[in-house]
Amino acid sequence: MTERTNRQWCLASRPVGLTKESDFEWKEVELNEISQGQVLVRVIYLSIDPTNRGWIKADSYLPVVQIGEVMRGIAIGVVEESQNPDFSPNDIVQGMLGWQEYFISDGTGLTVLPKELPVPLTAHFGLFGHIGLSAYFGLLEIGKPKAGETLVVSAAAGAVGSLVGQIGKIKDCRVVGIAGTDDKCQWLTDELGFDAAINYKKESVFRRLKEYCPDGIDVYFDNVGGKILDTVLALINIRARIVTCGLISQYNAENPVPGPYNYGNILTKRARVEGFIVLDYFDRAEEAITKLAGWFAEGKVNYKVDITDGLRNAPVTMNRLFDGSHSGKLIVQVSEEP
Amino acid sequence: MTERTNRQWCLASRPVGLTKESDFEWKEVELNEISQGQVLVRVIYLSIDPTNRGWIKADSYLPVVQIGEVMRGIAIGVVEESQNPDFSPNDIVQGMLGWQEYFISDGTGLTVLPKELPVPLTAHFGLFGHIGLSAYFGLLEIGKPKAGETLVVSAAAGAVGSLVGQIGKIKDCRVVGIAGTDDKCQWLTDELGFDAAINYKKESVFRRLKEYCPDGIDVYFDNVGGKILDTVLALINIRARIVTCGLISQYNAENPVPGPYNYGNILTKRARVEGFIVLDYFDRAEEAITKLAGWFAEGKVNYKVDITDGLRNAPVTMNRLFDGSHSGKLIVQVSEEP
Repeated sequence: MTERTNRQWCLASRPVGLTKESDFEWKEVELNEISQGQVLVRVIYLSIDPTNRGWIKADSYLPVVQIGEVMRGIAIGVVEESQNPDFSPNDIVQGMLGWQEYFISDGTGLTVLPKELPVPLTAHFGLFGHIGLSAYFGLLEIGKPKAGETLVVSAAAGAVGSLVGQIGKIKDCRVVGIAGTDDKCQWLTDELGFDAAINYKKESVFRRLKEYCPDGIDVYFDNVGGKILDTVLALINIRARIVTCGLISQYNAENPVPGPYNYGNILTKRARVEGFIVLDYFDRAEEAITKLAGWFAEGKVNYKVDITDGLRNAPVTMNRLFDGSHSGKLIVQVSEEP
Repeated sequence: MTERTNRQWCLASRPVGLTKESDFEWKEVELNEISQGQVLVRVIYLSIDPTNRGWIKADSYLPVVQIGEVMRGIAIGVVEESQNPDFSPNDIVQGMLGWQEYFISDGTGLTVLPKELPVPLTAHFGLFGHIGLSAYFGLLEIGKPKAGETLVVSAAAGAVGSLVGQIGKIKDCRVVGIAGTDDKCQWLTDELGFDAAINYKKESVFRRLKEYCPDGIDVYFDNVGGKILDTVLALINIRARIVTCGLISQYNAENPVPGPYNYGNILTKRARVEGFIVLDYFDRAEEAITKLAGWFAEGKVNYKVDITDGLRNAPVTMNRLFDGSHSGKLIVQVSEEP
């Protein structure tokens, strides 16, 4: 075998505020030969998610990425070599492959993806991956929406939010989305069937929510925290449920961020706020994927991907999560599909 | 019948910060004759509760008390006259009788208390009243503690908190209380069986919680909000439950109060924060009272009352809720028991 190189983005410093490219170091290292029990995976697609920012900030639901380590990332790749009986060359696998071209593993945490799904490979991040599972379990298990209730979704044009709203419609809820451009709002109402959408950068979220949620808010799927959470809390109904899936408004904060000023409404409205991490539901993935695939086949759910070419662009792409310049699932393509 | 006077405290102004006696007006009004369907109740005991402060601040789970209205209050009284077939003279009743000597009602919202309980009348506020129900349902229905888990209670020497901790011990939890004086802490550990107690005015709550909760915090019964809530959130376990029963630290605030800075831990720890208002459980009172009476008879729960004499003292007594000068159930005695 000829000598091969593995290119990697490693964490160089603990970022302050928005990450800079200089917070990562581009390394080219020699790729080792695999040994007994190992597999060599070539990375194809890298998933860029808001939670990535948290992974390099502090210990949370996963240990913080250490300085010098390859940046953690969910990715899809193809097995190029295997000395592990559970994997064969050309298997498509998903796992925490990291921000690099090649990943060598003993197979722990790698899932072989089914090949029969009539969707692009990237759907394994989206509709049939952690995004789909987040929307499905977060909304249905934590939010527990009932027909006729009003569901509000923030970051509604994002990968998770856009699915949450569509599942809400399938469950016969009134669905109001909050997003940051008119184009996104139009996509939500015209193409995804949301009942209404609010451009929080141009409109008064409070006034619009009052207008679009005449019966109050029963379920809030929170991807952002911050001021929008506070505004929603002012308008929740008795026994409202707040699914805390993300707090993207504060991921780049340099100083401690206060919780919502309307926290007291949790008490007076007997509301339930519950945190949600999709990892806890991976063992029930089949249930969600079966449902989501059915809805997709019936044309009831749709999704968007936003693919950037080249591992080199991973750091700048991560910041696009926070500048409002994308909608749908943000992905970096590292190499060609087989 | 001779002409009679009814003395009342009416709300005179919307208080700013701690209430002042001048926020209430002492009125002496003629007591009307009752008509068909009505009862005349003489108020004996008035319950003074932290939530009273909220009732005169803004609409919440009950409409705000209007300027000029008799101050709202839960009270126990005795029926002196009845033209309502559901009530007889000498019946002991409980309800929103208000801060006054006499209450005339058509019976709506009045509960006739059983006479057979082997406890003082004031226990109908405490162990067998809204306090007992708050502790019982708040802890068991919302907190859902499991044997071996760690329960932390704030305002632990208060009426609700002291019961919550004792019920936690009955459920085989490790129980740590937070209170504001050494005497209170000693009462909790030496007489009520708490495993540990923290004097938040003298000790580092964070350091002590780390020491007293070596396995982390599974259930937090929150009566106070504010900094203590923030500190607890820093130490919660995965799938912790936070029972939001009160937010006493902010009831007298003049400006909006931020929510907890560690709100993000609700997400990373998949915690559940749920608001709780005891009114929602009144239809299940019998279940709680039966259990509490059994535990009381077995010597497993105990309680304290702090009784101030004279309706005149109601406004100043209300502020004692916030200055840390009492423990157990705060009560104003308005007239003698029959």
